[in-house]
Amino acid sequence: MTTHPLTLAEYRDAYAAGRLTPAQAVREVYRRIAAHADPAIFITLRPEAEVVAEADALPATPVGPLHGIPVAVKDNIDVAGLPTTCACPDYAGIAAADATAVARLRQAGALIVGKTNLDQFATGLVGVRSPYGVPRNTLAPSLVPGGSSSGSGVAVAAGLVPLALGTDTAGSGRVPAGLNNIVGLKPTLGVISTRGVVPACRTLDCVSVFALTVEDAFAAFTALSGFDAADPFSRAIPVGSPGKLPLRIGVPDAESRRFGGDRLSEAAFDAALADLEALGATLVPVDLAPFYATAALLYDGPWVAERWQAIRSFIEARPEALHPVTRAITERATAFSAADAFAGRYRLAELRRATEPVWQTIDALCVPTFPRPQTLDALAADPIGPNAELGTYTNFVNLLDLCALAVPSHPRADGLPAGVTLIGPAGRDAALVPLGAALHRAGGTPMGATGASLPPAPEPGTARAAGDEIELAVVGAHLSGLPLNGELNALGARLLRAVATAPDYRLYALPGAGPRRPGLLRVAAGTGASIATEVWALSPAAFGRFVAAIPAPLGIGTLRLSDGTSPKGFLCEPEGVREAEDVSRHGGWRAYLAAGRG
Amino acid sequence: MTTHPLTLAEYRDAYAAGRLTPAQAVREVYRRIAAHADPAIFITLRPEAEVVAEADALPATPVGPLHGIPVAVKDNIDVAGLPTTCACPDYAGIAAADATAVARLRQAGALIVGKTNLDQFATGLVGVRSPYGVPRNTLAPSLVPGGSSSGSGVAVAAGLVPLALGTDTAGSGRVPAGLNNIVGLKPTLGVISTRGVVPACRTLDCVSVFALTVEDAFAAFTALSGFDAADPFSRAIPVGSPGKLPLRIGVPDAESRRFGGDRLSEAAFDAALADLEALGATLVPVDLAPFYATAALLYDGPWVAERWQAIRSFIEARPEALHPVTRAITERATAFSAADAFAGRYRLAELRRATEPVWQTIDALCVPTFPRPQTLDALAADPIGPNAELGTYTNFVNLLDLCALAVPSHPRADGLPAGVTLIGPAGRDAALVPLGAALHRAGGTPMGATGASLPPAPEPGTARAAGDEIELAVVGAHLSGLPLNGELNALGARLLRAVATAPDYRLYALPGAGPRRPGLLRVAAGTGASIATEVWALSPAAFGRFVAAIPAPLGIGTLRLSDGTSPKGFLCEPEGVREAEDVSRHGGWRAYLAAGRG
Repeated sequence: MTTHPLTLAEYRDAYAAGRLTPAQAVREVYRRIAAHADPAIFITLRPEAEVVAEADALPATPVGPLHGIPVAVKDNIDVAGLPTTCACPDYAGIAAADATAVARLRQAGALIVGKTNLDQFATGLVGVRSPYGVPRNTLAPSLVPGGSSSGSGVAVAAGLVPLALGTDTAGSGRVPAGLNNIVGLKPTLGVISTRGVVPACRTLDCVSVFALTVEDAFAAFTALSGFDAADPFSRAIPVGSPGKLPLRIGVPDAESRRFGGDRLSEAAFDAALADLEALGATLVPVDLAPFYATAALLYDGPWVAERWQAIRSFIEARPEALHPVTRAITERATAFSAADAFAGRYRLAELRRATEPVWQTIDALCVPTFPRPQTLDALAADPIGPNAELGTYTNFVNLLDLCALAVPSHPRADGLPAGVTLIGPAGRDAALVPLGAALHRAGGTPMGATGASLPPAPEPGTARAAGDEIELAVVGAHLSGLPLNGELNALGARLLRAVATAPDYRLYALPGAGPRRPGLLRVAAGTGASIATEVWALSPAAFGRFVAAIPAPLGIGTLRLSDGTSPKGFLCEPEGVREAEDVSRHGGWRAYLAAGRG
Repeated sequence: MTTHPLTLAEYRDAYAAGRLTPAQAVREVYRRIAAHADPAIFITLRPEAEVVAEADALPATPVGPLHGIPVAVKDNIDVAGLPTTCACPDYAGIAAADATAVARLRQAGALIVGKTNLDQFATGLVGVRSPYGVPRNTLAPSLVPGGSSSGSGVAVAAGLVPLALGTDTAGSGRVPAGLNNIVGLKPTLGVISTRGVVPACRTLDCVSVFALTVEDAFAAFTALSGFDAADPFSRAIPVGSPGKLPLRIGVPDAESRRFGGDRLSEAAFDAALADLEALGATLVPVDLAPFYATAALLYDGPWVAERWQAIRSFIEARPEALHPVTRAITERATAFSAADAFAGRYRLAELRRATEPVWQTIDALCVPTFPRPQTLDALAADPIGPNAELGTYTNFVNLLDLCALAVPSHPRADGLPAGVTLIGPAGRDAALVPLGAALHRAGGTPMGATGASLPPAPEPGTARAAGDEIELAVVGAHLSGLPLNGELNALGARLLRAVATAPDYRLYALPGAGPRRPGLLRVAAGTGASIATEVWALSPAAFGRFVAAIPAPLGIGTLRLSDGTSPKGFLCEPEGVREAEDVSRHGGWRAYLAAGRG
């Protein structure tokens, strides 16, 4: 089994080297599922032969970034032809179409192996509220698996599949990750379409990603993201690229620390904070009082009515068909009036405003994923209290329109899990990635329950102008060999060096006639891409003539290059890129043209 | 009376020429109020002597764009020291502080003369639901004045004050304008703060402006706009400046035209459409079905619960204190559950999505302000039906997050009013101004009921570089007399001309050490401000050296100037202005410094 892949990179390498075919990979997945012998993970497991046939039908060249990757899907997300149960057998119906997120998985080349167990109707953070059984926690059988995305979290942690979809309204995409030592990426609301997902709280729901590494989670997130006109809650928010380590990190202040009195969990979190400092971060104590006040709205306020509304006709007709705990929680909704719902919305608007200023002082917030792990015994004794405690650091996130990344950190002294979650404002998903990956590696844990070590971080090249010369960085049609390069030669310019920008830019393919040209736009430090440039040297007069001839929306400003220099260089007015395609992912204009897109 | 001002421009000219003092103006306002003899307009009229004293206390030089302008304020907006009644005597309390909008009026130099009548709790579009009487329609005593901002609309139409604040949730800022032949500007939600306004539907409320001309309404809108951290529903949306005439104009398609069977109102609307075509517009038929479906949510759906929630403790304690119609409408709220409220929100999200594509095909939508005017007799016979009909073209606007500008158009053949309303997406308030002003003038009506003609539209310099010289437009510290101007002289540059940019820019005061500098950013055409520049001529080498020395975030691109030229000029990277103050309203860096803000 150790020669078989665990991470996306390992899958890709094995496929590229011809050591493995997707069909072989699928067979291995089914072998692992059988060997793991936990019948509570999958509610629906597709027949092996059917998935193998799908794998065999994949073309030889990768169709997308998830080519041949086996994926498990939480059973509140539609997969065409399979039942969507939401862990409620009487609710189940065969999905006529793929949810948009599932369709994007398939477009990227993924292979869906089955539908995973969950707390019924995604209501819960424990993973025990299901008639399909309780998936075993992969690290300690005494612990709850975490929920509501219990099956998806456990399937990844056990190394059955490298990737699984969850959903997250109150923490369902983070708590199972924390309790099973894996990565849970909870995106900004609306970035991944929720079309085809059975709602929990429709204004707060998102599709989340479980993976063994931050790199894998982010790769899946990138493949899944994108505006979906068919989802009224979809938002056109650019995803961005990971940049530098964010270094102003908010942490709960003394009064905001909550561990349920558990010293081992507290010590583990302090070890993660020490890692942050060792990584060069400045820790900024943050009063979480307004965050906790927000969380109180979710289950004790009118938002529970969204859960009711989501299954209204079903719960009114068949209340006895629900799990008793799920039913009790959901029926609280009937106590709230429409006026209460609006009052809650006003209170939330106030709390959002109250929490906004903190993001001026920090780049991300680092909290424990949960105060302490919870046992099956504790849940048996009290089905509500321990569940509520698990949501301490997760419940406020979606209400406040934040994104989050749960990563494993140092385990507790007794070996039980104690992950941390990085939280950022809407749209800053990518900015959390570098720190999440660094913290994960600093924690030193194996990947999930696989026993395998986390692979090392992926890797990230001096002539200068002389005398009176002026340095100019070009990024587009003036690059060597491209159509306008002759202009530089005619002006007597000389090529100094090829160097990428700092990861602070976005590159757009500008519309219009004539030679195709890109526009470079600087964005917030670390939130953009590194773009390939060439730095040329020109005389002042040549430079002056060159600048005078540049047409709008292009202009000349000062660039930040990855070699630490700051020459003059091409920039673009933001108005000029409004209709333009963002091609930053190619890392440069030449690469974009080579990809056959130009 | 004809020698006394009616419009803001006339007030400004009279003050500047010394023909009038603010105190004299105030006395004239009170004389006009007395002469008009309608006791139902003002609920609270401040003592004349008090306002005269305030006028006398104004400095001789204008303190702002509304210097010495008498303003009336709808009585659901707090003015410190005056009761806020919402047209419900038992609800009234003395306001401790000015609403933010009132504070901005005062900062701009305005003089508040009193609080105006309204449909109780701003619930209604008729102006008859008030224990303080019914303000007389200024055009025809048989007609309702329109509401809910009845007093404010009538006060402006009668020429008592040139400006009044209303509020608008379902059309309260537009219907009274249409019924009294004046301009009603209903801004994008959140652009003018609603702090200190008694809510009707808090998620939909906005402060609106009544004026005799589009120019006056927009001037007030500009003075009132701005993010207010104390209002959870305030939004940081740039206001923009009027640009060119938008020319793709959506109009109701054949099935969407609603005039209550009234041929005269229909003919008047067709005359306005002919004006649009004469102005060069292309008329695009639009199916308003999804807009009308949205409107149905407002009174027949859960949003009425916002009206209940706004006065919950009052209506529960003193239901008999309400106007019977207002009470009956508001008490409908109790039939709706929290689940209904969320279901309504989902439906609205779907309808917003369904109506979004139309804005790709049109620049603005032009609809009648109301299907036909309504009489007092009709309302006496049926207090609900005619009110509902008046909201046909207004109810959907706030729910869909649109902005609107109601302007007088051709009167009906019988002389009764028939205005039109231009509607645009959120944030495009300024873009509606040029077309609104042109349509208003094309309609040929006098201003309100004043009998005075609409003044003509306000009006909108040529050395050039020679030979090898390059033109450079400077906007900040390089302007003549400012700290860095010496750099230009040292490079042998010569001043060619002073000329403003096209209205496509925003100017920011950049933070940082050294000489204070602005950053100029191009925005969508017509949505920015015209910024003062100086165009200088430099040799290529001088220009090259000059550009090479410009520090980030500044750079050189191509500017669009109002004289039609496009020289090189200073621009700023958008990342550089993220924390910077927008000073575009000053129209230039020198004006900003002169205002003592630099």
